[in-house]
Amino acid sequence: MTQRILRFLADECPDTPCLVVDLDRVEHNYRELAQALPVARIFYAVKANPAPALIERLAGLGANFDVASPGEIDLCLAAGVEPSRISYGNTIKKKRDIAYAYQRGIRLFAFDSEAELDKLAEAAPGAAVFCRVLVDCAGADWPLSRKFGCHGDMAVALLTAARRRGLDACGLSFHVGSQQTRLKQWDRAVGAVAKLFGRLRDAGVEPRLVNLGGGFPTTYRTDVPPVADYARAIMNAMTRHFGNDLPEIIIEPGRSLAGDAGVIETEVVLIARKDEQENRRWVYLDIGKFGGLAETMDESIKYPITTPRDGGTTGPVVLAGPTCDSADILYEKTPYLMPLDLSIGDKVRILSAGAYTSSYSSVGFNGFAPLKTYCI
Amino acid sequence: MTQRILRFLADECPDTPCLVVDLDRVEHNYRELAQALPVARIFYAVKANPAPALIERLAGLGANFDVASPGEIDLCLAAGVEPSRISYGNTIKKKRDIAYAYQRGIRLFAFDSEAELDKLAEAAPGAAVFCRVLVDCAGADWPLSRKFGCHGDMAVALLTAARRRGLDACGLSFHVGSQQTRLKQWDRAVGAVAKLFGRLRDAGVEPRLVNLGGGFPTTYRTDVPPVADYARAIMNAMTRHFGNDLPEIIIEPGRSLAGDAGVIETEVVLIARKDEQENRRWVYLDIGKFGGLAETMDESIKYPITTPRDGGTTGPVVLAGPTCDSADILYEKTPYLMPLDLSIGDKVRILSAGAYTSSYSSVGFNGFAPLKTYCI
Repeated sequence: MTQRILRFLADECPDTPCLVVDLDRVEHNYRELAQALPVARIFYAVKANPAPALIERLAGLGANFDVASPGEIDLCLAAGVEPSRISYGNTIKKKRDIAYAYQRGIRLFAFDSEAELDKLAEAAPGAAVFCRVLVDCAGADWPLSRKFGCHGDMAVALLTAARRRGLDACGLSFHVGSQQTRLKQWDRAVGAVAKLFGRLRDAGVEPRLVNLGGGFPTTYRTDVPPVADYARAIMNAMTRHFGNDLPEIIIEPGRSLAGDAGVIETEVVLIARKDEQENRRWVYLDIGKFGGLAETMDESIKYPITTPRDGGTTGPVVLAGPTCDSADILYEKTPYLMPLDLSIGDKVRILSAGAYTSSYSSVGFNGFAPLKTYCI
Repeated sequence: MTQRILRFLADECPDTPCLVVDLDRVEHNYRELAQALPVARIFYAVKANPAPALIERLAGLGANFDVASPGEIDLCLAAGVEPSRISYGNTIKKKRDIAYAYQRGIRLFAFDSEAELDKLAEAAPGAAVFCRVLVDCAGADWPLSRKFGCHGDMAVALLTAARRRGLDACGLSFHVGSQQTRLKQWDRAVGAVAKLFGRLRDAGVEPRLVNLGGGFPTTYRTDVPPVADYARAIMNAMTRHFGNDLPEIIIEPGRSLAGDAGVIETEVVLIARKDEQENRRWVYLDIGKFGGLAETMDESIKYPITTPRDGGTTGPVVLAGPTCDSADILYEKTPYLMPLDLSIGDKVRILSAGAYTSSYSSVGFNGFAPLKTYCI
């Protein structure tokens, strides 16, 4: 919670629910990361928070952008980003969307399969392509499943084929899982990638790029290692496995840039008990899983939450959203305590909510409008 | 899949993904239900599919409407629905939203807690209110947790208090869980409600209404009992527990009216394997969990899916959406088989997708537009 957000909420009293993003904080996070990892090019993961003002602020700082769709490409171009600063990082693209990106000047693409390589060779001739490999995501709060990436053997075969087909087979990418707090995971992944670099060279491919993906965490209820520790872990891993012959490094932070820059202001709609004997209160807010808090799915992300009555005696609560959907419960298993004198109408603040909230918001489930964002 | 939808898709070739809803089918479902349960008043659960043309069609048939928010109230009023045909069925309402509804003429409200009763007594004086009680949801594909409803003892106390405060304490509601296929669950719930009716009468309250909620299923991959069986189970339960002194009956179908009237047309974006040895293909569609298929959460709802190559040899697939989100997987544990010659660009159809799809769609996650609906 920054002073600027506090002041905005006090002065403007915006209707709830709403998300307020402090762009100065985003800029601070960007500069801190750039300073900690000076050898890396930073590609902001637009999906984390696509607010135009946020994109413009980062564009002005010289950031690059990782996009997932033509919609995000248009957003970046409209913010004045040159196509050379855009990476089409989604491994799942329609061929006509690749062609659209290529036509707009984008020349850097992710892929992880033979069929996607076919599309790229045809729709983006000569473009630089990197192949995403599967790595172990243990330790991530929002682990990545096997949806993206392929086995290392396949990556070598695919990049070799890419070169044969006239593409610039530039390197490899991986992702250790979002909100990853085990620093050693980067070392393991970088080690695996370095081995694949050797195999690629043997196959006549000259890889030059390692895309370390995202995964850098933001602080929710528990502290996370500082950016400097992540930077050190990454640089140690890179030098340990690549020696002095360091490849180009790309990182794709989203959460770690926008997360702690945003606060959701919400209102207590109802406080209830299911029977007289029940100790836990049900606290219903005017935002829930379908209004932007999708990452509470399986109670994965545990937001810090403040109330105007903090400091007094507290008791356990179940937190839920305002829709008629029974799945719209934020925290039922995770212990949350709130003041016993919390009242209907109180403004409750959900901290570290700048990333992966507004963009997940439903278009109008139960007739509730999408989460409104104020960039300040 | 109706003939009208087939013809529309063939003639119009709309961009994918899109949802096509056959309003004639919705009308058929409504008439069938109304005929099977002539003593019940039907309140369509607007949240299931709030397409204006669908609301208008049902309004023209004389349906009533169950709404969750001021947004849904406005939608119904704009479609020409009289306020006397609207029930504000959300138990979680801001006091100003209750006042808004009351001012627009709505006089029927749900509640399940003391604090909500306070709001109703102040913002909706004299209105009819029904209290939602907790019942067992076992057997539902989308069970309801304890988010809504209170213990029976509390319901008696709340309705007694409601009467004391000048409200019309008109009855009780329950919900057996969405896509409920165990017919006996209605008998158990109606039995419990009948007992509460007796206790309410002893307390000087004259309840006259039982709101049976929704839960009526639509056909997904497995057959469900026909509407007539549900109607019979409900009427048997009502007469067994209430005898000849039947209360007013309200039902709130959503899925069973709109579900099988809608088809989502989607395109295969990518087919991939993670390594050469893997048997299962990953099939990526241009719609996923955040584009409208939220009910695939935990693989709860299993949609029937057709491809243009059905009939030949099939193999197992994992089905996933187009976003860069690792949680955007539709079916990984549920066995789905698709033709071995399925190809990128093929149009795949997700059937029984008329309910709880378009309204769940995200406002633009990953830059993808919300699901477009065509009502025909």
